[in-house]
Amino acid sequence: METDDSHSSDSLSFFNDHLQESSKRKSGSRIILALDIPHRKETRNLLNDSIGVLDKVSDYVCAVKINFHLIIPLSLGELSKLNQEAHSKSLLSIADIKLNDIANTNEVATSYLWDCGFDGVIVNPFVGFKGGLDVVYETAHSLGKGVITLSYMSHPGADEGYGLEMKNGSSTYEIMLHRAIEWGSDGVILGATRSDKIRHARSVLPKDIKIISPGSGAQGGDPVASLKAGADYLVYGRSIVSAVEARESARQIFETLKTPPA
Amino acid sequence: METDDSHSSDSLSFFNDHLQESSKRKSGSRIILALDIPHRKETRNLLNDSIGVLDKVSDYVCAVKINFHLIIPLSLGELSKLNQEAHSKSLLSIADIKLNDIANTNEVATSYLWDCGFDGVIVNPFVGFKGGLDVVYETAHSLGKGVITLSYMSHPGADEGYGLEMKNGSSTYEIMLHRAIEWGSDGVILGATRSDKIRHARSVLPKDIKIISPGSGAQGGDPVASLKAGADYLVYGRSIVSAVEARESARQIFETLKTPPA
Repeated sequence: METDDSHSSDSLSFFNDHLQESSKRKSGSRIILALDIPHRKETRNLLNDSIGVLDKVSDYVCAVKINFHLIIPLSLGELSKLNQEAHSKSLLSIADIKLNDIANTNEVATSYLWDCGFDGVIVNPFVGFKGGLDVVYETAHSLGKGVITLSYMSHPGADEGYGLEMKNGSSTYEIMLHRAIEWGSDGVILGATRSDKIRHARSVLPKDIKIISPGSGAQGGDPVASLKAGADYLVYGRSIVSAVEARESARQIFETLKTPPA
Repeated sequence: METDDSHSSDSLSFFNDHLQESSKRKSGSRIILALDIPHRKETRNLLNDSIGVLDKVSDYVCAVKINFHLIIPLSLGELSKLNQEAHSKSLLSIADIKLNDIANTNEVATSYLWDCGFDGVIVNPFVGFKGGLDVVYETAHSLGKGVITLSYMSHPGADEGYGLEMKNGSSTYEIMLHRAIEWGSDGVILGATRSDKIRHARSVLPKDIKIISPGSGAQGGDPVASLKAGADYLVYGRSIVSAVEARESARQIFETLKTPPA
């Protein structure tokens, strides 16, 4: 994404500045497309079909989130082409690998992600900073890339991880949220199935840390409640990608969310 | 890997039976090679160079662990070739993506991993079972594949996740260990930098759940102490892969570990 000097912002996050700029170019869309193309036995056309979905829906979304649906089967060269297509449509591209490894692996993994043009990465702060995610924050921010941390996921079993109660009276969720502030995350992931957590997080997080909320579509979360609670961006995957008419589905979701919540 | 009917075992785990069989074929080697080829700007020869390392060291290792160093840059077809090479050398192949996503993504990710011939996958039990890892255990075990869960990682910051103290007096480590039993993991990951944890885990886990311990090489853990404490397999990466003489390095590590600990 190009830097737009006319775009003034108090943000310290290049990633968030670009995401906001992209959102403006897409008529204020706050939809991030999860490009979750279903598993297939024959992957020869996977890149072209992925680009095809981007072509159809790019008017209604501000970014694309790419996860193992594509990162496992596609080569680095194919991922580069996909990210070039996303950028040519003014979309930011986020690699959702929920990274939680030792520093050496994290460094190599994110080096390849930056090489092929991703603008941000989603990581799991459970793994810790020292000899873990420290290197990701350092290198990502030196390159103007974004680091997004999980705070509370959207699936039923998320309680089993993010809902654990700590000895000191807090919860794993609160620890993850605190790390986003302490470590300098550009955004956090909070499931749209948990608008109470979104409301709490918005009251705790500085405005510079954006709330990205998946789970409004196939998973049944309430997108309007999520936005009211303070979500900045909503992630939609299967309800667009697997729709008979992907463009029409994206347009409908965009129109529904267009009217700002009261 | 072929099933060997002559190999009798009380194990309920096809994966562990195959791993044990592979170890026998490699003169009892309990070394798992982490095929962590360093990041490179030009990835054209990455597959061939990876196979080259396998060629050199396969006599001294019983399995290969493949992570983002290769899974991000290589295509599904290339990963298939790599796993075919591993199998042709009687090596099991483990995908180390520390998976921690919602069920839909976990299902697609592991489908691709099985498609290209991986025998097992490493997952992070922090994500939870319901609508998370449930589908991974179901499908993996129906296909005879292994599921290995993180219990305590090897890096300095592992305490920040696995060492959290719970309200009920236990720790996140103990919760992760309990999940390995409850969910039916084939193995657990316990860093060689924490032999006290290995000793504790071995006293708690049924023998059917193998302890796989990384961190003996570049990270400075004590391999002999890990084996004495109850580790079943040790993971070596950089100290073999990045050695000037990879085969000689693997042979030396093999010889050091060959003498069973007193």
